[in-house]
Amino acid sequence: MLGLLAVGSVALDSVKTPFGEVSEVLGGSATYFATAASYFTKVGVVAVVGEDFPREHMAFLKGHPIDLEGLMITKGRTFRWRGEYGYQLNEARTLETQLNVFQQFNPQLPSNYKTAQVVFLANIDPELQLEVLLQTRSPELVALDTMNFWIGGKRAALLKVLGKVHIVIINDGEARQLVQEVNLVKVAREILKFGPKVLIIKRGEYGALLFTREAIFSAPAYPLETVFDPTGAGDSFAGGFMGHLARTKDFSMDNLRQAVILGSVMASYCVEAFSLERFRTLRLDEIMERYRGFKRLTHFDEMPNAV
Amino acid sequence: MLGLLAVGSVALDSVKTPFGEVSEVLGGSATYFATAASYFTKVGVVAVVGEDFPREHMAFLKGHPIDLEGLMITKGRTFRWRGEYGYQLNEARTLETQLNVFQQFNPQLPSNYKTAQVVFLANIDPELQLEVLLQTRSPELVALDTMNFWIGGKRAALLKVLGKVHIVIINDGEARQLVQEVNLVKVAREILKFGPKVLIIKRGEYGALLFTREAIFSAPAYPLETVFDPTGAGDSFAGGFMGHLARTKDFSMDNLRQAVILGSVMASYCVEAFSLERFRTLRLDEIMERYRGFKRLTHFDEMPNAV
Repeated sequence: MLGLLAVGSVALDSVKTPFGEVSEVLGGSATYFATAASYFTKVGVVAVVGEDFPREHMAFLKGHPIDLEGLMITKGRTFRWRGEYGYQLNEARTLETQLNVFQQFNPQLPSNYKTAQVVFLANIDPELQLEVLLQTRSPELVALDTMNFWIGGKRAALLKVLGKVHIVIINDGEARQLVQEVNLVKVAREILKFGPKVLIIKRGEYGALLFTREAIFSAPAYPLETVFDPTGAGDSFAGGFMGHLARTKDFSMDNLRQAVILGSVMASYCVEAFSLERFRTLRLDEIMERYRGFKRLTHFDEMPNAV
Repeated sequence: MLGLLAVGSVALDSVKTPFGEVSEVLGGSATYFATAASYFTKVGVVAVVGEDFPREHMAFLKGHPIDLEGLMITKGRTFRWRGEYGYQLNEARTLETQLNVFQQFNPQLPSNYKTAQVVFLANIDPELQLEVLLQTRSPELVALDTMNFWIGGKRAALLKVLGKVHIVIINDGEARQLVQEVNLVKVAREILKFGPKVLIIKRGEYGALLFTREAIFSAPAYPLETVFDPTGAGDSFAGGFMGHLARTKDFSMDNLRQAVILGSVMASYCVEAFSLERFRTLRLDEIMERYRGFKRLTHFDEMPNAV
């Protein structure tokens, strides 16, 4: 049985950063998510590519514990994205988006995907996210990502799907846009009113915040000297986070905290190289070593006595 | 004997934020620093005010364990600053600076200040910071703050004083400007080459990073619903940080981490009201309670076993 199901994009990215430039490399939200999650559990991908999708990229995905039965190959060209980053590396400037085969994307779940207990709806049209959810059989945990485009343009559908998911994973700009409020504590309270039990706000180089109605958990980003390409960091975060939850089936606050750190670990490795290059060599013991690095980075003692 | 000595400004601030506006309220780097530090140890202030400095503000300072022998009252008007903040509350826009009596400020240490073992040089002309250091008798720990104005305009004097201090406490923009580099890990390595053993980079709502040559510690800012006025947050941070170090006389990495959290606690209380209003009522047990809040905010368990 499939532990984790993800729907999203598989793409060819062309990316320019201050440290170099790559053309038509492997990308896409489902790609980053599934690759990161595959270190923790077997993950099924629902996505679409064109007939031009390079065999080497297919081989890369097959090299990880990723189920590709849900990856449709259809007539036409694969989804393409072109973007660049400035020296601050904090936000991509999109130069071009070619939807291509993604334009007619109509996600169909293979039968053994329908019983997946953990589901991730990457950033796609909220109407498609709803369609995917309708094909599943009451999963225990559903998480969703979205973006400014859908928040502005498909608000009604987005609010509908927000009412059906347990976890929202978005960045700070998107969270603020969603409820038209600057203060993140207030933002979180409002978003949790839409239905989700957990909100994760990704803040790039500043880490991530996890909100429930009762508690907040703050995780830093890992301080790196070599940030080559931030593309996919958010989806790699979600992959590590959801992969851990799907593997452990423990949705307690303590385990959510560990999952946030594992997500942060996967994001930190993702940005060390272009595309998914770092995941070609990344080993489980490196993931555990960086987890311990996060512990050293954030640990401080209780106060032994009153000051 | 004086535990902690601070040199800096005592000012009258006029501040506008999205939540209100105040005129000629108590402000200044030495004021915020000393008030925050006074919860941990007795602190002496070296600064200057004019004859117009309101008696109520003097009474406020005297209401805390602050030694005012070093606070000169001279002919003329007190230093004034006027600024405003936008909705993001992340950076002040300075509308007016009147140096007034601060223009002729020539810090003179009372004799019992000269043996202070812990010294904080708030953000003033690095030449004045040097003059203060020359009057001290080999303090065990000296920390310094500075700003873009001195980094750009008095670089030689600033580098000279950087070679004589143990700790630098600046914000991310200043740190990047100082060594002309974006990546904070590289920034830290370069700044530590100037002499200091410890660099603290303040990042406002994103918390603070502490760097030594061997380790990094990351602390978040406390998520608050009511940020009324960020003025003085950085100096309150420094006050809590240095106050704890002066009280404990323990400069180990473990204690530096605790000091960063106490600094973050003091900054978090500072911004809850205009001016130093929150420090009128703040109690030690509230400081300890928020320290425990930081622990809950950041704690995650070790991995029990390999994933």
